[in-house]
Amino acid sequence: VREALAADAVLELFATADALVRHPELTARASEISVQDAAALSETVTPQGLVAVCSLAQPTLSEVLLVPPRLVVLLVEPNDPGNLGTVIRTADAAGADAVLLDGGVDPYNGKAVRASAGSLFHLPVLQAAGHDVLAAAEQAGVQVLATTGSRNGDTDDIDDLLDAGVLARPSVWVFGTEAHGLPDPLLQAADRRVRIPIHGRAESLNLASCAAVCLYASARAQRRA
Amino acid sequence: VREALAADAVLELFATADALVRHPELTARASEISVQDAAALSETVTPQGLVAVCSLAQPTLSEVLLVPPRLVVLLVEPNDPGNLGTVIRTADAAGADAVLLDGGVDPYNGKAVRASAGSLFHLPVLQAAGHDVLAAAEQAGVQVLATTGSRNGDTDDIDDLLDAGVLARPSVWVFGTEAHGLPDPLLQAADRRVRIPIHGRAESLNLASCAAVCLYASARAQRRA
Repeated sequence: VREALAADAVLELFATADALVRHPELTARASEISVQDAAALSETVTPQGLVAVCSLAQPTLSEVLLVPPRLVVLLVEPNDPGNLGTVIRTADAAGADAVLLDGGVDPYNGKAVRASAGSLFHLPVLQAAGHDVLAAAEQAGVQVLATTGSRNGDTDDIDDLLDAGVLARPSVWVFGTEAHGLPDPLLQAADRRVRIPIHGRAESLNLASCAAVCLYASARAQRRA
Repeated sequence: VREALAADAVLELFATADALVRHPELTARASEISVQDAAALSETVTPQGLVAVCSLAQPTLSEVLLVPPRLVVLLVEPNDPGNLGTVIRTADAAGADAVLLDGGVDPYNGKAVRASAGSLFHLPVLQAAGHDVLAAAEQAGVQVLATTGSRNGDTDDIDDLLDAGVLARPSVWVFGTEAHGLPDPLLQAADRRVRIPIHGRAESLNLASCAAVCLYASARAQRRA
């Protein structure tokens, strides 16, 4: 709620008497509600007594790619709200310019909002079809790096790309679902297919962990090139 | 269940008739149970009809550090089972030798087991007090890297440590809770206090994302040094 207020995104604010004692600065802004009503409005087991109705103005895809961005994330059909929110938080931390979503769960799902820890209000998060993103990225001169668990000859190890200086370039990182990865046409249309090496016996990485490794590899390469 | 069987960790196996149709190779091994019993034994909303009772032999802390390990994870008071399981999965993927737990939630909690995606059966996961781990690491000549969100002069940026070659050395990475970080005595007793740079406006990273960045930075440094 603090991040939503800072982003000027709050339309209506409701608070319990207890919450107003803890946050007296909200008294002028909030309508007081009962503990029961706060619980009914909230999805959590132990609601904090503060509920905000928000509206966020998001840029369009062309606006995101107009000033060529340095680092953009595209998630295709993200199906776990916790993972989605965590990726938005990591993208924010890594200094990404925007998070694009091709389908998947609603980023304003309560679980996604909480997992984003406020980052949903820090950077643009918008829906965009994968092939539109690839076309816009090509026009903007931004390379598209599609992640895959496959180890065939057509894929690059992320460590090799780091060594070769490829990650220092402006990039859109594309992530699919844990179960099915990326649809083949999108994978083939990307500039590169990239895998994170698995050194142990795990079959794969969790989506949010994978995004953390990729985005921080780019953030480092772009700042230390 | 497949990973538990592969690790020879299964004491008893129960399966519904449907599950045995899907996995006929388990017929000799499993006792058939009803769908109702499978649901009662399982914690998930859509149980898969397979339940295994497992026993895992874990090494002791001295055994883990006897052959000097290359990469070890210590989690202090992990309180989220999903994060705990995800860190175990990432540690496995990054080729870590063991995951040590100083308190926190049970790694055999159903949610942690599922988030670990089988990795709980791939590497040792054991309880060990933080100060015992630090003493054993010192004796084994393994450096202790404690993560912190603090930016004071006493902390190192992970990118600087990568550049300086420090991450190529055998390491124990120590992670605290998201809310409170690491207890100060442990932080001060570590060889280094390390922070991941936050380039955007996020306050911090999710615990599992933080572990992914640190462990993969070490895995890369140790293999490309």
